[in-house]
Amino acid sequence: MKAYGKIDWAFSAGRIPFHSNGEEPEMNSHDKISVLNTSEEDAIVEMLIFYEDQSPVGTYEIRVEAKRVRKIRFNDLIDPEAIQLDRNYSCLIQTSVPVVIQFSRMNTGQNQNAEMGGMAFPADT
Amino acid sequence: MKAYGKIDWAFSAGRIPFHSNGEEPEMNSHDKISVLNTSEEDAIVEMLIFYEDQSPVGTYEIRVEAKRVRKIRFNDLIDPEAIQLDRNYSCLIQTSVPVVIQFSRMNTGQNQNAEMGGMAFPADT
Amino acid sequence: MKAYGKIDWAFSAGRIPFHSNGEEPEMNSHDKISVLNTSEEDAIVEMLIFYEDQSPVGTYEIRVEAKRVRKIRFNDLIDPEAIQLDRNYSCLIQTSVPVVIQFSRMNTGQNQNAEMGGMAFPADT
Amino acid sequence: MKAYGKIDWAFSAGRIPFHSNGEEPEMNSHDKISVLNTSEEDAIVEMLIFYEDQSPVGTYEIRVEAKRVRKIRFNDLIDPEAIQLDRNYSCLIQTSVPVVIQFSRMNTGQNQNAEMGGMAFPADT
Repeated sequence: MKAYGKIDWAFSAGRIPFHSNGEEPEMNSHDKISVLNTSEEDAIVEMLIFYEDQSPVGTYEIRVEAKRVRKIRFNDLIDPEAIQLDRNYSCLIQTSVPVVIQFSRMNTGQNQNAEMGGMAFPADT
Repeated sequence: MKAYGKIDWAFSAGRIPFHSNGEEPEMNSHDKISVLNTSEEDAIVEMLIFYEDQSPVGTYEIRVEAKRVRKIRFNDLIDPEAIQLDRNYSCLIQTSVPVVIQFSRMNTGQNQNAEMGGMAFPADT
Repeated sequence: MKAYGKIDWAFSAGRIPFHSNGEEPEMNSHDKISVLNTSEEDAIVEMLIFYEDQSPVGTYEIRVEAKRVRKIRFNDLIDPEAIQLDRNYSCLIQTSVPVVIQFSRMNTGQNQNAEMGGMAFPADT
Repeated sequence: MKAYGKIDWAFSAGRIPFHSNGEEPEMNSHDKISVLNTSEEDAIVEMLIFYEDQSPVGTYEIRVEAKRVRKIRFNDLIDPEAIQLDRNYSCLIQTSVPVVIQFSRMNTGQNQNAEMGGMAFPADT
């Protein structure tokens, strides 16, 4: 099957809240992306994290198998270092084959209990 | 009237929750797409479902009449098999004429009571 | 100033709920679009409403002045006829000059109290 | 690194609610954009605000450093004048280098407690 999607993606409004309520890990506050790889070969997904007041951190690398979807929780990214909590960050995502990426956030802390969704942005210029 | 939209669509962050509260079927947790067919001919909508740990399942086929909209609940898709609950999935959608597709989710289970919306992604490469 | 945006837009997941709570009209359940006209001339906005089980209804026509934004609540559209409540509908929007259109929904009925937002889809083929 | 994104952006459904609950400033009702600048040079971000019943106001100017993200709350924009509360507005954003912009809203007033997210619209014609 053809590889649908794009190879460059980005989202800018990342933030993993410090406070969290509910059952773990289902209701834990998190940012996540879902990566759909329709192609016949595995996709190497490289992510670079941008912050407000320090140099970018990365590359975080994840493999998404051929003809599979994979959900990546940013809370789980620890190599080269964990994403910092309660700080604004952005993410640039580059893949070896075209994929479709959707971004969503679960926020269960404080007064909030919301799931926010949106597409990551195909970041071609 | 002209056929507005695209013929290739995808969303990657599908998940039908197991838990659900409220009146049936209005408030049942579900993923759904709305398909607008502005053209003068019926649209054949073919959907392929991708999972994290097994081969894609499909093709699910739905007809959307000329100059009509149709809402498709993924809970209702049973042929060739029901979408698996509480598992991440993605969907590739291909149509015989250009259409406009919007994805939304109603989640009424556990601590959540949210409607999340977003466009499906026009999946051209 | 240049006219930014597109002349063809569409959204497919319209639905005006019958039930509504809260202060009127601020918290009334509604679907709405915001139309930004950055150009030097007024924009004529023509809307056509598609349903699941009847022919399209329209054209609804609205004027958006030059260098202004205008919020259009679908509850308020009555000419040629009111949008039907509790029924799925889609909307095709065509404008005389390029505009930027955003769609959002306020649902205050039943168990819900959510604002759902998203871009309308630039419906070029 | 390459400058990913676009130089023209817009969103049309802006509105800063007057009512607000919760801890300040974290839970204050606000509209905000996150601007990701992946490039090697600082981005000059110029914003023009459109209203329903008066001429556009601006330009508001913000600098986003090279290889950084910056979150801009519209409540904080005061030069040349504060954004008016409880009034619909739109925003046209133009940048000196390509950036990726995401729009989101936190509404903690009245009966609402929702975060609404979405991409700003790449406003090329």
